[in-house]
Amino acid sequence: MKQVLILGAGRSSTSLINYLLEHSQTNGWNITIGEQDTALAKKKFPEASVIDFDIMNQTAAKAEIEKADLVISMIPASLHVHVAKICAEVGRDMLTASYVSDDIKALSDQFAEKGNQCIMELGLDPGIDHMSAMKVLDRIKSEGHRLTAFETFTGGLLAANDLTDNPWKYKFTWNPRNVVMAGTGNVKFIQEDRYKYIPYHRLFTRTEVIHIPGHGYFEGYANRDSLKYLDLYNLRGIRTLYRGTLRRPGFCKAWNIFVQLGATDDTYQMENVSEMTHRQFINSFLQYNPHDSVELKLAHYMNIGLESEEMYKMQWLDLFSEELVGLDKGSPAQILEHILKKKWTLSPQDKDMIVMWHKFNYIADGKPKEIQSHMVAVGDDSVNTAMSKTVGLPLAIASKLVLQGKLKTPGVHIPTIKEIYEPILDELEQMGFEFSEREVTES
Amino acid sequence: MKQVLILGAGRSSTSLINYLLEHSQTNGWNITIGEQDTALAKKKFPEASVIDFDIMNQTAAKAEIEKADLVISMIPASLHVHVAKICAEVGRDMLTASYVSDDIKALSDQFAEKGNQCIMELGLDPGIDHMSAMKVLDRIKSEGHRLTAFETFTGGLLAANDLTDNPWKYKFTWNPRNVVMAGTGNVKFIQEDRYKYIPYHRLFTRTEVIHIPGHGYFEGYANRDSLKYLDLYNLRGIRTLYRGTLRRPGFCKAWNIFVQLGATDDTYQMENVSEMTHRQFINSFLQYNPHDSVELKLAHYMNIGLESEEMYKMQWLDLFSEELVGLDKGSPAQILEHILKKKWTLSPQDKDMIVMWHKFNYIADGKPKEIQSHMVAVGDDSVNTAMSKTVGLPLAIASKLVLQGKLKTPGVHIPTIKEIYEPILDELEQMGFEFSEREVTES
Repeated sequence: MKQVLILGAGRSSTSLINYLLEHSQTNGWNITIGEQDTALAKKKFPEASVIDFDIMNQTAAKAEIEKADLVISMIPASLHVHVAKICAEVGRDMLTASYVSDDIKALSDQFAEKGNQCIMELGLDPGIDHMSAMKVLDRIKSEGHRLTAFETFTGGLLAANDLTDNPWKYKFTWNPRNVVMAGTGNVKFIQEDRYKYIPYHRLFTRTEVIHIPGHGYFEGYANRDSLKYLDLYNLRGIRTLYRGTLRRPGFCKAWNIFVQLGATDDTYQMENVSEMTHRQFINSFLQYNPHDSVELKLAHYMNIGLESEEMYKMQWLDLFSEELVGLDKGSPAQILEHILKKKWTLSPQDKDMIVMWHKFNYIADGKPKEIQSHMVAVGDDSVNTAMSKTVGLPLAIASKLVLQGKLKTPGVHIPTIKEIYEPILDELEQMGFEFSEREVTES
Repeated sequence: MKQVLILGAGRSSTSLINYLLEHSQTNGWNITIGEQDTALAKKKFPEASVIDFDIMNQTAAKAEIEKADLVISMIPASLHVHVAKICAEVGRDMLTASYVSDDIKALSDQFAEKGNQCIMELGLDPGIDHMSAMKVLDRIKSEGHRLTAFETFTGGLLAANDLTDNPWKYKFTWNPRNVVMAGTGNVKFIQEDRYKYIPYHRLFTRTEVIHIPGHGYFEGYANRDSLKYLDLYNLRGIRTLYRGTLRRPGFCKAWNIFVQLGATDDTYQMENVSEMTHRQFINSFLQYNPHDSVELKLAHYMNIGLESEEMYKMQWLDLFSEELVGLDKGSPAQILEHILKKKWTLSPQDKDMIVMWHKFNYIADGKPKEIQSHMVAVGDDSVNTAMSKTVGLPLAIASKLVLQGKLKTPGVHIPTIKEIYEPILDELEQMGFEFSEREVTES
């Protein structure tokens, strides 16, 4: 009987744990969930064994990890390193959906010497993005063609049937804070052999249109530092490399209002928050003027019409109302997040949607060629979201493969190697998470 | 014979040390300069005793400090605390021109118990700004009037006679890095009882015009967190509180180009800097487009004319030339500073100019009143600048007063109290650094 220890039973673990429980009897797996909130874990997963687990209690943590054949870590990303150190020391396989860090990378030899593997970035983004991109990139290279451009976009959106009464065509489908802070930090990419940089306050004005046949039009904005994929995907010498985030058309122009106001700033605390209304929140970023309304000042500040689509989106969020924010303190970003949650929280029947899109340009026999591929996944409801499935299932499949002895890659890895991505993508495809691929002819 | 120990003989100490040396014989002071670069100090100040001094060598530092009656610390601001700890322990008076920090404030009781004082912020800004503002604020309060608004602006500029051939009407007259980074961080102020916040990327578009009779027009932009002056100047309840920086008209609109490009970002390193030209530096922030010139793309990005004043200012800086930047690596801010220094470094005959301006509004006998006061100082040349004099002389005067026993304020202080600011302002006035004050009638 194989022993599986899953650390963390929060929202992002749901699809993963359900999958493993479903397949545990036929495969002879014994599933144990390690949680600090054992009551919650027992309620969510009555079939599983639940133990009290705190990674900061190193002795007890080590004892539990030694009992397991495989450890799947879903605790906060910054704590994975403590789990990894024990796994590397006692020789256990480990899987996570989080970004690999330098201190975990440094454990690669230790894992390898023990004949064990630590595979990270096994979610959606990072995860399925690596796998689906590398599958096509490796094929183009193996056919001897020269890659010239790679662009990739992912978005967590609302499904098309939920859009009618929501002018933003958007709600929070994952961590709201990450959405409010999206794009802060440095944006770097390569276009036609030139390094390009976009400052945060211009990011949402520099969008491009992406068309996906059968799904319509989306807008994409650049996502962080694309340059690190030069080495990650072995793309040195490529002329264009661009990673981005997808939204439905019109989102970015309206979101840019918050950016221009400074309402996404998380570096300072605002004054008098307990007495602040939505309207005052917006007004605190606008010039004092006793004669004009907040609406007029905002329209003038953004150089848009009072009756524009963007102003309507702001109105729909009740941003001009004298409703109290409802917090005692907060940074602009925290207050904005709180206001947005009032309208952007999924209703039970809401369905989310994941869209991932890649574009590959290459030279084959002296001729320019282009391949576009995409995956679209729709959630069942506000609990079984497309997001939770696409984050949890690649990890679940990898767990199965490891337990069945079909995946053996000693050392620390991410799924950019064929041995890992091929079997996971195959099984995702069987489960309906399929990439459509088409060759695009120059027009 | 009084022993004076001056720590640091760099550029910002010149006026201070010269003043103390000039007055040393008549007053019976023995001046010692503690420096790591003893050769430089001996060359600059042949009349002074120079000793090798490193504050990180605590034993030797303590021995030297114990020999002194007064210690004036001009070493980097972050190191003052080490000097202050020794002075508080062995009981010596200490003066600096730097901002007081929390760890130095915490030594106040220890200084006081020994009967010693540590007075900080004795330069221009911070320094003369505190003194000249508090003098009027204290007078208005002592007359029983209710203060409603206080605005204050300071600028380090070029003198009027140097402006003809420089369309920016600006050169670096103090630390260039501080000028490039000016305005980053949080801008907060109060206007008509409302807390207001300005994001960095909008700061240079929200300027106001300041007119100073006899000196013409200036433009001012908000400077950091004005709210901390609520307590510093005892202004709780005031309806408007605004601190700002002065530039000559037209500067901010052109400087805003750098801000909008992201060229003042200091948070990441650019790629391929050793091969980068000025033109490529600008182009790296603009959208790729094989058909348009960098000039056209920039004018379009900023929504200004190709022949506009701002584009001319950029051209004057040779920003569109294929001249190499001349650095091996750097952040956007570091590269911009390096390019700007090529044109914005003072020539030997250049004269700088300091402008400080305050506006006070209050209610006297039920009627609104307004006082404006200002000080303008012009440098002699590029070494004896107005900046070095206005930074060094208040400190020099305070030193004299302390040595003569005329200034005794045990504990840690800044010059917001009458005992300190009154005698210093009196002497500054005798030296020609005078504030003109006028009552402004409502029009």
